[in-house]
Amino acid sequence: MSSEPSTTDRAPERRSLGIGLIGYSFMGQAHSQGWRNARSFFDPQLTPRLVALGGRDAGAANDMARRFDWAHVETDWRALITRDDVDLVDICTPGDTHAEIAIAALEAGKHVLCEKPLANSVEEAVAMARAAECARAKGVRSMVGFTYRRVPAVAYARQLVEEGLVGEVRHVRAQYLQDWLVDPESPLTWRLQKERAGSGALGDVGAHVVDLTQFITGERLTGVSALTETFVKERPLPGAVHGLSAEVGEGRGQVTVDDAAIFIGRFSGGALATFEATRFATGRKNSIRVEINGSHGSLSFDFEDMNVLHVHDATAPGPRSGFTRVLVTEETHPYVAAWWPPGHGLGYEHGFTHQAADLLAAIAEGRDPSPSFADGLGIQRVLAAVETSAASGAAWTPIDPPEISY
Amino acid sequence: MSSEPSTTDRAPERRSLGIGLIGYSFMGQAHSQGWRNARSFFDPQLTPRLVALGGRDAGAANDMARRFDWAHVETDWRALITRDDVDLVDICTPGDTHAEIAIAALEAGKHVLCEKPLANSVEEAVAMARAAECARAKGVRSMVGFTYRRVPAVAYARQLVEEGLVGEVRHVRAQYLQDWLVDPESPLTWRLQKERAGSGALGDVGAHVVDLTQFITGERLTGVSALTETFVKERPLPGAVHGLSAEVGEGRGQVTVDDAAIFIGRFSGGALATFEATRFATGRKNSIRVEINGSHGSLSFDFEDMNVLHVHDATAPGPRSGFTRVLVTEETHPYVAAWWPPGHGLGYEHGFTHQAADLLAAIAEGRDPSPSFADGLGIQRVLAAVETSAASGAAWTPIDPPEISY
Amino acid sequence: MSSEPSTTDRAPERRSLGIGLIGYSFMGQAHSQGWRNARSFFDPQLTPRLVALGGRDAGAANDMARRFDWAHVETDWRALITRDDVDLVDICTPGDTHAEIAIAALEAGKHVLCEKPLANSVEEAVAMARAAECARAKGVRSMVGFTYRRVPAVAYARQLVEEGLVGEVRHVRAQYLQDWLVDPESPLTWRLQKERAGSGALGDVGAHVVDLTQFITGERLTGVSALTETFVKERPLPGAVHGLSAEVGEGRGQVTVDDAAIFIGRFSGGALATFEATRFATGRKNSIRVEINGSHGSLSFDFEDMNVLHVHDATAPGPRSGFTRVLVTEETHPYVAAWWPPGHGLGYEHGFTHQAADLLAAIAEGRDPSPSFADGLGIQRVLAAVETSAASGAAWTPIDPPEISY
Amino acid sequence: MSSEPSTTDRAPERRSLGIGLIGYSFMGQAHSQGWRNARSFFDPQLTPRLVALGGRDAGAANDMARRFDWAHVETDWRALITRDDVDLVDICTPGDTHAEIAIAALEAGKHVLCEKPLANSVEEAVAMARAAECARAKGVRSMVGFTYRRVPAVAYARQLVEEGLVGEVRHVRAQYLQDWLVDPESPLTWRLQKERAGSGALGDVGAHVVDLTQFITGERLTGVSALTETFVKERPLPGAVHGLSAEVGEGRGQVTVDDAAIFIGRFSGGALATFEATRFATGRKNSIRVEINGSHGSLSFDFEDMNVLHVHDATAPGPRSGFTRVLVTEETHPYVAAWWPPGHGLGYEHGFTHQAADLLAAIAEGRDPSPSFADGLGIQRVLAAVETSAASGAAWTPIDPPEISY
Repeated sequence: MSSEPSTTDRAPERRSLGIGLIGYSFMGQAHSQGWRNARSFFDPQLTPRLVALGGRDAGAANDMARRFDWAHVETDWRALITRDDVDLVDICTPGDTHAEIAIAALEAGKHVLCEKPLANSVEEAVAMARAAECARAKGVRSMVGFTYRRVPAVAYARQLVEEGLVGEVRHVRAQYLQDWLVDPESPLTWRLQKERAGSGALGDVGAHVVDLTQFITGERLTGVSALTETFVKERPLPGAVHGLSAEVGEGRGQVTVDDAAIFIGRFSGGALATFEATRFATGRKNSIRVEINGSHGSLSFDFEDMNVLHVHDATAPGPRSGFTRVLVTEETHPYVAAWWPPGHGLGYEHGFTHQAADLLAAIAEGRDPSPSFADGLGIQRVLAAVETSAASGAAWTPIDPPEISY
Repeated sequence: MSSEPSTTDRAPERRSLGIGLIGYSFMGQAHSQGWRNARSFFDPQLTPRLVALGGRDAGAANDMARRFDWAHVETDWRALITRDDVDLVDICTPGDTHAEIAIAALEAGKHVLCEKPLANSVEEAVAMARAAECARAKGVRSMVGFTYRRVPAVAYARQLVEEGLVGEVRHVRAQYLQDWLVDPESPLTWRLQKERAGSGALGDVGAHVVDLTQFITGERLTGVSALTETFVKERPLPGAVHGLSAEVGEGRGQVTVDDAAIFIGRFSGGALATFEATRFATGRKNSIRVEINGSHGSLSFDFEDMNVLHVHDATAPGPRSGFTRVLVTEETHPYVAAWWPPGHGLGYEHGFTHQAADLLAAIAEGRDPSPSFADGLGIQRVLAAVETSAASGAAWTPIDPPEISY
Repeated sequence: MSSEPSTTDRAPERRSLGIGLIGYSFMGQAHSQGWRNARSFFDPQLTPRLVALGGRDAGAANDMARRFDWAHVETDWRALITRDDVDLVDICTPGDTHAEIAIAALEAGKHVLCEKPLANSVEEAVAMARAAECARAKGVRSMVGFTYRRVPAVAYARQLVEEGLVGEVRHVRAQYLQDWLVDPESPLTWRLQKERAGSGALGDVGAHVVDLTQFITGERLTGVSALTETFVKERPLPGAVHGLSAEVGEGRGQVTVDDAAIFIGRFSGGALATFEATRFATGRKNSIRVEINGSHGSLSFDFEDMNVLHVHDATAPGPRSGFTRVLVTEETHPYVAAWWPPGHGLGYEHGFTHQAADLLAAIAEGRDPSPSFADGLGIQRVLAAVETSAASGAAWTPIDPPEISY
Repeated sequence: MSSEPSTTDRAPERRSLGIGLIGYSFMGQAHSQGWRNARSFFDPQLTPRLVALGGRDAGAANDMARRFDWAHVETDWRALITRDDVDLVDICTPGDTHAEIAIAALEAGKHVLCEKPLANSVEEAVAMARAAECARAKGVRSMVGFTYRRVPAVAYARQLVEEGLVGEVRHVRAQYLQDWLVDPESPLTWRLQKERAGSGALGDVGAHVVDLTQFITGERLTGVSALTETFVKERPLPGAVHGLSAEVGEGRGQVTVDDAAIFIGRFSGGALATFEATRFATGRKNSIRVEINGSHGSLSFDFEDMNVLHVHDATAPGPRSGFTRVLVTEETHPYVAAWWPPGHGLGYEHGFTHQAADLLAAIAEGRDPSPSFADGLGIQRVLAAVETSAASGAAWTPIDPPEISY
């Protein structure tokens, strides 16, 4: 070892981007982890600085800021988005607040990352997409957080479709299965109230599989026939669960969103598609299954085995033909080179790091990140068509092609 | 060992039932194997005698009769069904002949086992169900061959639903996936011609998943919204595949049935259901997947792993909760005691043995076997509703409850 | 249809071979099914005739003869093997009787199929292999029943190794896991008595994985270090289980065979191998797992998923590399063309049909069938080496190369 | 929202512990991530401060320090371990340096976390265990990094064994399979040199499965019979791979460690065990498989599906018996409550966070963390016994019980 002074200071930081994050629960933590890990593992040209965490409950927000090294806490999101040291606003709040915050942030000249679904209605989503388009003219970037696109196996599936492995897409089958509402005594949280959440399983998890299948195929849904259902129509209000039996009547409230949504549809290339989004698939915790069958090959993915993609190449028939279980942990696979050796799998949270890294790269390179607010609007139109169809006896409901696209 | 004479004659046969089977290809072989094995492994009260095999091609029929020990061959099915030594007619011909043969056989006082789908149209199925009802009054039995019900794992699934494991059914998802038509040069056989086959993937394989899900849940489909598609619209006529290129135009014909059918539906108990039947699921050979989620538990089956049923009991929550992979090869499981020790799995053909054994037992005991022609008619109504919906832009199409039921 | 007389007689039978089968329990049934199905599905040049079933209990034997159409029953095996109409003797009795019956049958000029393990000791196996060699000079064939070789996925694995897919074999890992003795009150049957069964899990199931791995690799084990264990040393004598508690002491007997055997070894090509044979793998019913890793590729098989072989080709690296799940149900796969369409899996018993068909073909064509009695002797030497090693503190025990080989 | 000033400062930090980490490659990154995430997700009583990163290459170390927020870099490990602001030394260097650094750090009064294997020889491991014992008397803690113990499914397996689910352990089968050396042109890195790495697959990956099985069962290995092999005996020296062909002879070096090690052994409770550790399991990237069979139940784990534990409870027999696939992602499972909702799986790196959190908790509470250096010595004795056995023709080699234990 050298006889030189052994202590050195760290290398100087690169050009940086101040992040302001609004929301400190599940999604807020996942995004915090994403920004931090993007910096450590992807070494981006633009280094994210964790400037400010926004949250109405100062205590909770301060606690999280301490644990994740956010430099400041703001209890008013308007204060956060106008801070000079905040360059990007990351919105992790419930869907009913997305439009207001995102539009204000874009107008304040801040880049925006907005959690999915983009909004609670097509109207809001249109307004957001327009705001994004205006901001874009000034070099302000926006992106909606369909994180599962950035699971390496999913990104690799997209790559294989682009390379022609699947050929003409004939079948898409997609399910997002959870079961956390099977218990009828599970309380009536904001996620079960239409005015806050917009919809139930449809927007919360169905949005993901709509996005995943459109992303992987590179096509869009052109119409749907749908059924939705609310299996448990009344639930205890939070806090009232342990109330006296006499209070039960008053202590309960109406569930105003869907518990499950199923639909069939047709993709722009002619493929037949089946979709299912539910919180009542007893025994399934977070099972996201997508299978694509095409004229030349097939792909199959299940988030319960998230580091694996099953690939079938029908152009090489013969006795050794079948689905190959590809462990998507090689450095030749999307995002993987930044992480661990082959076979050392990633987890749920890594998609947030990939999202942060991709967004930082797009901003640094002056490109539009993807999925855009226009893409988010496209998803919103699908969700709206599902609700329209379900409300009209599963009638076929066409979905307009996007008028904005970038 | 005894000093008695060591040679003894075999024990005398029991009361027997003369079988006449019509059809000598894939299904004819499977049924032949079923009758023979029912006798050997289930030791039925009524011993089946393989009396006569019917088929128009005398050479092919004789060859099969030799290999499977059918005593006689008949090239005219009318001769077969009127033989005095034939007590039961087993119909394994294409669907367009089912009604004529079955009705004639029932009128001739013969028990009838008819392959699925029961008929090519609701009208034919109604006529058959009526003929079955008339015959039944005279002690003549009839049954339709939805064999997959008799896979032990499926029969066990039904048993678990009856025992209450699943509770109120909320979700049914069912797929029957094959890929033997992906190659556009695969020839235009009778299975692709509407006048012979009635429909394509819908009747051939879709009928099975409709029956399986109604059987397991004990409920019926009350309505559907459907899409169907013929991905490859023209195919070479059989024999013309190797013709000169100049003849290609003439050597091709129109595919007049669906290549794939998908639909959503609602069961009588309120469950949401998704269905898929296709011959274009590239890489899937005979994948029959059924998953049921209910208020108390779930069941999951895949024919590619046919000796296994995955069972989730949600009434025993806690950290050890999950889907239990039950190897349905114990003597406590349906049909299994007749066969091999635990872990020594059965194959596709065993369902035909179970079907034969169940039918023999019903006849011996004077009971109606199941599924009845009325059940077959019920399936036919579902298939017709799918076609109606698909023909009218995926419009919701209700399915009438059965008017005949036994 | 023709106006010709519609009734025709069956085609005349081909040249036939009279089968005499000794043993009417589990194995006797499996072999009966094998002979019968070989005739129906493989249409062999030599048609097997089910001439005589041998068994000491005339009632049980007659019952089985009736169910499987055996023409005669013999309660003395010596009478059976000298019948003029018996051309082949199929031995399905416990191992302690194999040598005497097989040698007598060979000397009587009958072809012999003998269940595995060939014998209870190397000495007996040597005598049998010599008798087979003598008989062979007179055109009399012999074969030992390692049926699992004839599971299509296993036969296909052998084919892939021969084609070079695996390259130089480096690792062999093989397990045969059952659990039917975990209950300490399970009775002391003949399979737990050394004088009848020869050994315990080692000979009963270990013999299979030794054969399977030698068969697939085309190499032989050259030495082993082994441990064996009898976890439950005393068990109730059959019939005494429900005796008075005072009688328990007298109602129990010593288990004189191994409950489990594990060993490491080296194959002739240098590969490292691990083996496990047990009746105490709680929860595993008949799990036979074999994995082979070589310089160019790998193969993996599990009998619990018997229609599948997992194949890895390392000569085509890249991001799409992985194990391909080959559904071994295509007509291009060994034995499969005789059966059902793709994806319609076979079961445990089909190996017995393939065994019968292969043996009939070898006899018809004047070839030696495989595995020979010499191969069976080779397996016996491995089992003996395992016992020697286990008895001497897991000392390394070399295994002599075979002196007889055909 | 409040009209109060919306900006607040973060809550004050808790009591902290200064970390000095030596090593900046694969393991250094994993440990950095572990310390950081322990703070964010487990909110430990003792907050880790990332004080100093040690590495001989100042540039590389500075780069990593920048990315992971290490405050200082030291190019001389002796300087690092004597810093006043370093309270704990985390050793992520190759095995030949562990003893010197760890003993010096302990003598300097620093807590030590040392990567596995503890040392390259039993002698070194003894010295380290003694040093740890001395330091312990002064309240200085030490721990060896068998991280896979902290995969939630593994920790849960241990918990189930403690609760009695498995009963008396009869079988242990464990494999650690990689394939990164199958290519004979893969270069001769330090991991293939005995003087640096101590051993090959044995110490690198075999150590893990020895630890995992001893940890889960709560028993220890009492003896082994082993085979080791170096399949590719010469490899290109790093940098020489693309040299001229004339230089190949000189550009190659001897591989002086094992490519694979297999062994059988016996656990202290009598169980039979098979082990395999290899870098030549073609197609397997990081497959760690452990199965335990006992008198009352079984457990099965595969790191390729790391969020799942298969659990079989044999005390509840019946037709619904089988292995339950437990998705170990519920907040009732070890470590999981700190992370995401059910079904949102963790990845490889999370074990390092759990390790850091456990160590911080032990130090804060004045407890000895586990596994101790004495435990590491125990593993080292097993590895030495494997090498001794392999060097003496697979002779049975007993393993002494530990003389130090805490």
